[in-house]
Amino acid sequence: MASPSNAKPKTHGLRAVPVDLDQNLLTTRRLTLDLAAPLTDEDQTVQAFPDASPTKWHLAHTSWFFETFVLQPFLSGYRIFDPHYNYCFNSYYEAQGARHPRPARGLLSRPSAADVRSYRAHVDAGLAQLFASGQAHEPQIAYLLEVGLNHEQQHQELLLTDILSLFGSNPLRPAYRETPFAVSAQDTRPLRWISFGGGLYTIGHAEPVFAYDNESPPHRVFVNPFKLADRLVTNGEWQEFMRDGGYDTHQHWLADGWAKIHEDNWRAPAYWEEQDGVWHQMTLYGLAPVDPAAPVSHVSFYEADAYARWTGKRLPTEFEWEIAASSVAVEGNMLNSGALRPLPAKTSTDMMLSQIFGDVWEWTQSAYAPYPGYRPAEGAIGEYNGKFMCSEQVLRGASCVTPDSHARRTYRNFFYPHQRWQFCGLRLADEA
Amino acid sequence: MASPSNAKPKTHGLRAVPVDLDQNLLTTRRLTLDLAAPLTDEDQTVQAFPDASPTKWHLAHTSWFFETFVLQPFLSGYRIFDPHYNYCFNSYYEAQGARHPRPARGLLSRPSAADVRSYRAHVDAGLAQLFASGQAHEPQIAYLLEVGLNHEQQHQELLLTDILSLFGSNPLRPAYRETPFAVSAQDTRPLRWISFGGGLYTIGHAEPVFAYDNESPPHRVFVNPFKLADRLVTNGEWQEFMRDGGYDTHQHWLADGWAKIHEDNWRAPAYWEEQDGVWHQMTLYGLAPVDPAAPVSHVSFYEADAYARWTGKRLPTEFEWEIAASSVAVEGNMLNSGALRPLPAKTSTDMMLSQIFGDVWEWTQSAYAPYPGYRPAEGAIGEYNGKFMCSEQVLRGASCVTPDSHARRTYRNFFYPHQRWQFCGLRLADEA
Amino acid sequence: MASPSNAKPKTHGLRAVPVDLDQNLLTTRRLTLDLAAPLTDEDQTVQAFPDASPTKWHLAHTSWFFETFVLQPFLSGYRIFDPHYNYCFNSYYEAQGARHPRPARGLLSRPSAADVRSYRAHVDAGLAQLFASGQAHEPQIAYLLEVGLNHEQQHQELLLTDILSLFGSNPLRPAYRETPFAVSAQDTRPLRWISFGGGLYTIGHAEPVFAYDNESPPHRVFVNPFKLADRLVTNGEWQEFMRDGGYDTHQHWLADGWAKIHEDNWRAPAYWEEQDGVWHQMTLYGLAPVDPAAPVSHVSFYEADAYARWTGKRLPTEFEWEIAASSVAVEGNMLNSGALRPLPAKTSTDMMLSQIFGDVWEWTQSAYAPYPGYRPAEGAIGEYNGKFMCSEQVLRGASCVTPDSHARRTYRNFFYPHQRWQFCGLRLADEA
Amino acid sequence: MASPSNAKPKTHGLRAVPVDLDQNLLTTRRLTLDLAAPLTDEDQTVQAFPDASPTKWHLAHTSWFFETFVLQPFLSGYRIFDPHYNYCFNSYYEAQGARHPRPARGLLSRPSAADVRSYRAHVDAGLAQLFASGQAHEPQIAYLLEVGLNHEQQHQELLLTDILSLFGSNPLRPAYRETPFAVSAQDTRPLRWISFGGGLYTIGHAEPVFAYDNESPPHRVFVNPFKLADRLVTNGEWQEFMRDGGYDTHQHWLADGWAKIHEDNWRAPAYWEEQDGVWHQMTLYGLAPVDPAAPVSHVSFYEADAYARWTGKRLPTEFEWEIAASSVAVEGNMLNSGALRPLPAKTSTDMMLSQIFGDVWEWTQSAYAPYPGYRPAEGAIGEYNGKFMCSEQVLRGASCVTPDSHARRTYRNFFYPHQRWQFCGLRLADEA
Repeated sequence: MASPSNAKPKTHGLRAVPVDLDQNLLTTRRLTLDLAAPLTDEDQTVQAFPDASPTKWHLAHTSWFFETFVLQPFLSGYRIFDPHYNYCFNSYYEAQGARHPRPARGLLSRPSAADVRSYRAHVDAGLAQLFASGQAHEPQIAYLLEVGLNHEQQHQELLLTDILSLFGSNPLRPAYRETPFAVSAQDTRPLRWISFGGGLYTIGHAEPVFAYDNESPPHRVFVNPFKLADRLVTNGEWQEFMRDGGYDTHQHWLADGWAKIHEDNWRAPAYWEEQDGVWHQMTLYGLAPVDPAAPVSHVSFYEADAYARWTGKRLPTEFEWEIAASSVAVEGNMLNSGALRPLPAKTSTDMMLSQIFGDVWEWTQSAYAPYPGYRPAEGAIGEYNGKFMCSEQVLRGASCVTPDSHARRTYRNFFYPHQRWQFCGLRLADEA
Repeated sequence: MASPSNAKPKTHGLRAVPVDLDQNLLTTRRLTLDLAAPLTDEDQTVQAFPDASPTKWHLAHTSWFFETFVLQPFLSGYRIFDPHYNYCFNSYYEAQGARHPRPARGLLSRPSAADVRSYRAHVDAGLAQLFASGQAHEPQIAYLLEVGLNHEQQHQELLLTDILSLFGSNPLRPAYRETPFAVSAQDTRPLRWISFGGGLYTIGHAEPVFAYDNESPPHRVFVNPFKLADRLVTNGEWQEFMRDGGYDTHQHWLADGWAKIHEDNWRAPAYWEEQDGVWHQMTLYGLAPVDPAAPVSHVSFYEADAYARWTGKRLPTEFEWEIAASSVAVEGNMLNSGALRPLPAKTSTDMMLSQIFGDVWEWTQSAYAPYPGYRPAEGAIGEYNGKFMCSEQVLRGASCVTPDSHARRTYRNFFYPHQRWQFCGLRLADEA
Repeated sequence: MASPSNAKPKTHGLRAVPVDLDQNLLTTRRLTLDLAAPLTDEDQTVQAFPDASPTKWHLAHTSWFFETFVLQPFLSGYRIFDPHYNYCFNSYYEAQGARHPRPARGLLSRPSAADVRSYRAHVDAGLAQLFASGQAHEPQIAYLLEVGLNHEQQHQELLLTDILSLFGSNPLRPAYRETPFAVSAQDTRPLRWISFGGGLYTIGHAEPVFAYDNESPPHRVFVNPFKLADRLVTNGEWQEFMRDGGYDTHQHWLADGWAKIHEDNWRAPAYWEEQDGVWHQMTLYGLAPVDPAAPVSHVSFYEADAYARWTGKRLPTEFEWEIAASSVAVEGNMLNSGALRPLPAKTSTDMMLSQIFGDVWEWTQSAYAPYPGYRPAEGAIGEYNGKFMCSEQVLRGASCVTPDSHARRTYRNFFYPHQRWQFCGLRLADEA
Repeated sequence: MASPSNAKPKTHGLRAVPVDLDQNLLTTRRLTLDLAAPLTDEDQTVQAFPDASPTKWHLAHTSWFFETFVLQPFLSGYRIFDPHYNYCFNSYYEAQGARHPRPARGLLSRPSAADVRSYRAHVDAGLAQLFASGQAHEPQIAYLLEVGLNHEQQHQELLLTDILSLFGSNPLRPAYRETPFAVSAQDTRPLRWISFGGGLYTIGHAEPVFAYDNESPPHRVFVNPFKLADRLVTNGEWQEFMRDGGYDTHQHWLADGWAKIHEDNWRAPAYWEEQDGVWHQMTLYGLAPVDPAAPVSHVSFYEADAYARWTGKRLPTEFEWEIAASSVAVEGNMLNSGALRPLPAKTSTDMMLSQIFGDVWEWTQSAYAPYPGYRPAEGAIGEYNGKFMCSEQVLRGASCVTPDSHARRTYRNFFYPHQRWQFCGLRLADEA
């Protein structure tokens, strides 16, 4: 999941066309609309801050992506829905020309949400026609469709995290989902350490299924023996850090982080607020008491790193994480679970990693950088990933709002070290 | 019309209760809704920049004003519509407690526009009940109702100028009113000078009708003989100024203005853009060619002052303007005309001032300051005008979107010298 | 004394050439150097903030003024000292071309202070030559010399207030003058009110001596009867305001002022700091306990206005001040007294205004605006005053660091309402 | 060489006390004063921008380092020179308490440069006493002395680059060294590629001589076969990039870099300016024509990376650089050469890397991160390196102003990707 905005494909390494691409695409497109359904047109128009985008914009931009990179070049007779939309809904593709400034996306009361829904229907009709024509099975087109599908999945996650930021800034603290929920009664599961041997490992994507270009090429990395915590750091543990003066002790902090928490007066994770001495946090269910057993979320890299130093441990590298993740199934509390919030780790007696996929993205100590031999694709699609490889940190895993089929062991998410409006948390690591 | 935000009443000088206050109030309240009617709920949610407010916010704030200052204190049994609304819809009344930050008004996707319409209905019902009870005829309450009515009229104007700023920043350049219009065929009327004698004049409000506190007390001012242009400066004349390098010649400019036009790269009035060598301007009818015979609008005080220096003349003082205005009727191209844009001065053979009321507010060279003996009212209502009496300039007259019954010869509008999203223009003055 | 920077002449109204202009000029030029003498070259190089200028820059700029406006155009054979200096030492004269940015004046380690002293000697030699040639008696040249002399006097004051700002920001709190001084033992003199009758008064400069163009033309103003306090507001009284929550009570404040004190966290006049529960203030003698009987200084217009509202009184207009000042001699605690700090009002039994000249400049409620009929001079010299006539407030009187011969009853000093690094205080006024 | 400010030691791995530490220290301390000698006290007082520090501050801070970390804790009877100096001259050690804000270092006209020279003499006397006492041979003290020596060497480089930034912003473009120099007549040496085999390498410091903690622990890294250019990129090559629209072609740029060059309007390396169609650059010798055969310098990481993409190559990783550097001697055009500017690569017939040490620091594509197993030291000295390991890029080698004995193959310099006031350039790399 890319930031400052979004998502990005790869062009080389064409593979067999996946079966059921049309069905998957249809389902994915429909899901985006379903995610927007609980929101009024007004909710869909506004953005809480420049890093977030309006729901309506997500709905339109994902359609623009298919229109621009698939339908317009490949579907003969395709009619552009509205020539102004390229300006309105291009995210960051310099090759596609001028575009509306990102911080002003939330000012676009026009095109209306209804117009955007018509736009989606128009693009969907185009896609159906493309499938009907049989063209969608040509490798180049199939590849671009798959990129578009994955791109749309990224925006599904962003749609939810951006709405959380909007509702979190609203004095009424509205809920995206009205059902109330209870804080888990269970205690925090004791933390155990899982050991992994050192040596030469192959890192990166090498299987014949879709992956982004930034996961390639596969390459060898030497890693020392290491240990990983079997679960994520919890809200309860984070509160201990706070009570121990974690936010007041410079020794724990990177210099940039120490400056940031003073500049923005951070004293707790994002969306936390104290009410009558009890910490609450804004969730997709509205404001709710903090659940001590659930994983901490909405912390920046700076905070995650400071927490790890406070414990005397450290964050894992992205390589350590990927090595460890090879031992577990790609499953967990992701979007399909419907929970829409991080959940406590299940009690378990076997020494297995849990919460590797789902709940929260895990900050790593690895800066986002190209793998050896990486070259971005030619053309606009080459802007998808490569141009962000500076000053950001890699996060691994997936969150409670990541579409399940989007998660991969080699997946590299990335954000700036100060950003924290995503579901971001951490898992501790240590030398073996 | 106040800025940074809005509007403000007077408490002393109680007068006879005006006849038909209830009808006037009903009509005014209904007009506000009518003005919002062409706008979608999305349009009503957003603000283009911090000085502007969303339509929805205007609809709610004007209701909050009646709820807070009239219904809650005086209508027994009145039920507050929603206790959160005081936080959401207080504009700048420190005495009324904490409030939502002005630049973030456009993020309030909730309360919804529909909720706000219900709020209006609730307040209107309360007002009806107050009238039915006969209480509305008590002088103190009648006075506050009249303040509220005038306050609402100010927000009617702001609603339209704020929507213009929103649509002007939208890449689709939408129209508030769809009917197209043609640029006037007529030539600019030749400018003539009207002379006025010097001497001691009484300035300020002294009649037994409503006026804001900043128009009082009436007081004597000595004025030298002077001349005023019989009409406003036109777009055609402004283009001559531009062609003559007006924006590039420091000699015309105040130091602050010279800095501002470089900082923001101003080369023309607000909302002007060149298309294929022809100047267009954003209007409530969408983008249209500039009409050379119509009054220039959307210029800052800095620009108005520079233009006047370029001509070798000057801006009038607010006293000169008021003296001159006593010779003409309070009528012109205001909101009731339905034009919604400044119109060319009519050709005329008699030596009379035209365009004194309507078309555009006229910048004066007078800084906004208290009249001798002025004291703001006690309580929150005292924050209406007095606390803005610094660093702003007085504008006189009325604009094409000012409700007709709101205009007065003694009316003092005020904005900061750099502000130009209102319908602001100028009339030249000179020594006699 | 002008801001953003400095000083400005008039070109019309040539008068008899003043006797002893050469002696006065010589004395004035020498005094500037004397004022700089206690400072190291390092002290003379730096500026504490963008509004202030380095001592060295003042020394050079005042010389540049004579070189540019007198010697270069009128002294035949005059050799420009260094062609780079026009770029370095032009303050704000657009007509004189590009110039070094004001906030970066403090980065000019070159030209060195020694170079600047040579520059001064070179210009002084040129001036001596001009006097020797007899040319200095030609009215136009004599006028420009007198402007230059007055200009230099303004910079003498600025030199001292700017050094105070530099030393006030230095953690060592150095003293410009090493002699210690004791806080006055005397109590604050009780405040008495002096009454003045209303009517038509002539305001502005009309005598055959030098004055700036902004003091002209003389014109009639109608004034209501009024009262003025017989002395300035004191530090002791200001502390009462502070103890009474003056800085926490929005009712006293202009909206812009209320915003400013929160933005910059102002809780007391500039240069005040509390040490072990006792208020101290930075002076030209270093840090010293606040003297309760001395006039409060280094308050902004916002603070002066808030204080006046707290007392239920108001600030005088500049017209009231000028009318009142006609009753007293132009004398007081100014630069020649050598005190270099505001002193308590003397005890007195007769009902006379005191402290009208000297101690601190007095904020008025008058915005800085052109007098009726005012036109700035042609050419660069016309930039001296006129282009600052917007958004600033007039101050009247003189301060403890104003050269005595620079003070006049018609003198109009002006600063932005938030500025307070000058010796600025206030005197209360009221309706009669 | 650290940024935001300076320098940082290691505490573990105590080694045999180096012979001649006292002589080295004496020589180093004296050199710092020699480097400051051509500068006036005024030059030594000012800082051109927040990242740079005044010469005087460097002189004092390096002395404060010895006073605080060596003399005060270990030399019995040592008298603190001035208790205010800890506030004035602490750079970024949170553990040492409050300190003067970095951007305001250039306002400290006091303590004077003369005071700072006395401070240095006082500290030098303390160090001599420590050596005389024999204590300096205790491992812990010897280690801290060596840290202090290396720290001072870093500030020698910064002193020169900071002065360059000051003189580069001065309209007189003064020279640090007055001797003029001629642009080399020679052509750019043709670029050749040197190949290196892949495999497992040990990276980091493992020899029994001093190194900073960020070079440890030594650890194994797997590297693919690669090639390095045998010399640095030259000014002539950079001008080709400029002529080819390098600064206008988004495809070459990281997203953050593309934003930065537009925000700051970068069209060439820092200190470059065009005069009559010829590119000049500010050097320690003043303004001089750009030498096409000399290495390009004062480019940011963003620019270096964009240049590499334009050529179709890439920047090396810091590991590749260190592997390659093992084949060459630690020698080159560094401070001792006295050139004080980057020089063209010498013509050579053998296939050897040149310019590895000296001329300019070389940007790598490696983000600055802890080596596996790295732990910062306890106490203030632990703030030296570790807290900057985020969002910065590693540079390797040394520059024309790095003290020769300071250079090491394992040395890791680091700056933010936008910073370019150091002597920073690049060398191309490629896959084998």
